[in-house]
Amino acid sequence: MLSVKEAQEKVINSAVAKKTVKVPIIESLHMVLAEDIVSHDDIPAYDNSAVDGFAVKYVDIIGAEKNYPVKLKLLKDDIPAGKIPENAIESGMCIQIMTGAPLPQGCNCVVMKEDVLKEGRDVLIFKECRQGENIRFEGEDIKKDDVVLRTGKKIFPADIGIMASTGTDMVSVYKPPVVGILPTGDELIGINEELGLGKVRDSNSYSLSAQIIETGAAHKNYGIVKDDKELIRNSILSALDECDILLLTGGVSVGDYDYVREILDSIGVEFVFWRVNQKSGKPMAFLTYKDKFIFGLPGNPVSVMVCFEFYVRPLIKLFTGDGELSRKKILAKASDDYV
Amino acid sequence: MLSVKEAQEKVINSAVAKKTVKVPIIESLHMVLAEDIVSHDDIPAYDNSAVDGFAVKYVDIIGAEKNYPVKLKLLKDDIPAGKIPENAIESGMCIQIMTGAPLPQGCNCVVMKEDVLKEGRDVLIFKECRQGENIRFEGEDIKKDDVVLRTGKKIFPADIGIMASTGTDMVSVYKPPVVGILPTGDELIGINEELGLGKVRDSNSYSLSAQIIETGAAHKNYGIVKDDKELIRNSILSALDECDILLLTGGVSVGDYDYVREILDSIGVEFVFWRVNQKSGKPMAFLTYKDKFIFGLPGNPVSVMVCFEFYVRPLIKLFTGDGELSRKKILAKASDDYV
Repeated sequence: MLSVKEAQEKVINSAVAKKTVKVPIIESLHMVLAEDIVSHDDIPAYDNSAVDGFAVKYVDIIGAEKNYPVKLKLLKDDIPAGKIPENAIESGMCIQIMTGAPLPQGCNCVVMKEDVLKEGRDVLIFKECRQGENIRFEGEDIKKDDVVLRTGKKIFPADIGIMASTGTDMVSVYKPPVVGILPTGDELIGINEELGLGKVRDSNSYSLSAQIIETGAAHKNYGIVKDDKELIRNSILSALDECDILLLTGGVSVGDYDYVREILDSIGVEFVFWRVNQKSGKPMAFLTYKDKFIFGLPGNPVSVMVCFEFYVRPLIKLFTGDGELSRKKILAKASDDYV
Repeated sequence: MLSVKEAQEKVINSAVAKKTVKVPIIESLHMVLAEDIVSHDDIPAYDNSAVDGFAVKYVDIIGAEKNYPVKLKLLKDDIPAGKIPENAIESGMCIQIMTGAPLPQGCNCVVMKEDVLKEGRDVLIFKECRQGENIRFEGEDIKKDDVVLRTGKKIFPADIGIMASTGTDMVSVYKPPVVGILPTGDELIGINEELGLGKVRDSNSYSLSAQIIETGAAHKNYGIVKDDKELIRNSILSALDECDILLLTGGVSVGDYDYVREILDSIGVEFVFWRVNQKSGKPMAFLTYKDKFIFGLPGNPVSVMVCFEFYVRPLIKLFTGDGELSRKKILAKASDDYV
């Protein structure tokens, strides 16, 4: 019988054909980039003011200080963010400017409004500036065609902001798999049914659905299938048409009423492993069918959740491009004797 | 000017009228329970076998061991999970039983199949059992009407499994707020527009949307509103019809082109605070309007995200019933001088 680490290694070494999908950036949250993101522009796209203040010529304000202010003439039109400056600054002049607004021609520094006194059309400057001070220069943050985010990056809110600001509205990400759940067993009933003798409510498909949702994968619950070979066989085959990963719960133990192994055999699946040396959850199977993966999970509500965390989640991560870290963790653990 | 801790305290002391909503249990993932969950039944609902094995009378197998097995007669009908046993066990008899199957009358322990040898209709038992061994008794895990999950519990996959197994399909949770985003400014353009002089792409509404999604709240992006008083006023008022929390980005600094404060005044909002002693992001406002909350957030892409984490996320958590922990964290921090 396989040890847990051997079983986990078999799962994470599965040959998964990752697919990509193009989505609006807001839908890419917590997915993994399948392309490099390149800036469409220099950012900032033009020299602009970093503060609310007064655009001046550097040479005009050399030596300005509290007791010896420099007096400049204020040009009439100020420059709000979003407005293109109409006038160039000549020597002895200044122009009021807002944070983010494009610099007027002739300006090479901006004095903060706190260091200035306006007197009609005169402006008193009380503080010297370095050349270029309070200016954000074109391309200072990002150059056009710079790679701003790389393939393989998991996408968080700041990354979505970066994509928006550099002109990317649709992004290629690794497509999360579709994970189906097929609970089997004559003893299973729905949540709202009355518990009779010999019946238990199917809770596994709910806890598994929630675990799948947490991974970002799509989940499909096919509902309870009674212990009927033909019915189970058809349900498995039609589920495999739609799903990348199919989770069977119940039916994989060694009990005489466990049809599922026989049915899986008849379908022609490949058994990767059938039992794992773990307690509880020994009767746990991992199989492949064409490019699809099938897990036979134990019926016990705790075991089924633990097996999901140990085996199913790492496989889902191989699809979503997020598998490297979990692969490394599992391989690191594999050197310990923790079984 | 308020310190960060004073501002945070004002936010977390907001009078939020939490609403509840009834949802299917699978949709309640990561939400917070607004009711106690009570079991509809004893769990297990009937005495059943914990193993695959043979149901016997305890007195019949006293002294059984490897070299001195006890021989019992096997009753014809075995008991799979989900089947109601038809025959009672008389002395000297046994019946094959599967994990989870109801016990037949007269049985008071189950021998594991590993400790048994079947010879036609005879069964050799090689191991004694304690009375009650390998039996799961009715109500052993949960009693009918027991509270299995309490109001205020954040819901994880295992909780959804517990609700399903105890017969709850719909659950009352605290309703996440609707959070609107209204970016204002003549300088803003959409992601796909060409960056001209004086223009920047509106990235804040994307990073904010992603942050809102992470909290589980609903997000509504109202799109860029130009710097026109009437337009902004109408947009704010109609957004407030739909949202519990409205985020304005841009327009709250002290610049001469920041109409928003004036507009908010004219609407009749109540200013809780207007500026916070933080860098960057000083121009940050928190206001209330009837039972709604408004944040005026700075335009800088980093500041806006930080302000979300510091102020907006804790407020959202008050709505979702998940605020206690963040309130405690903030109050604990409030004793430090970390500003």
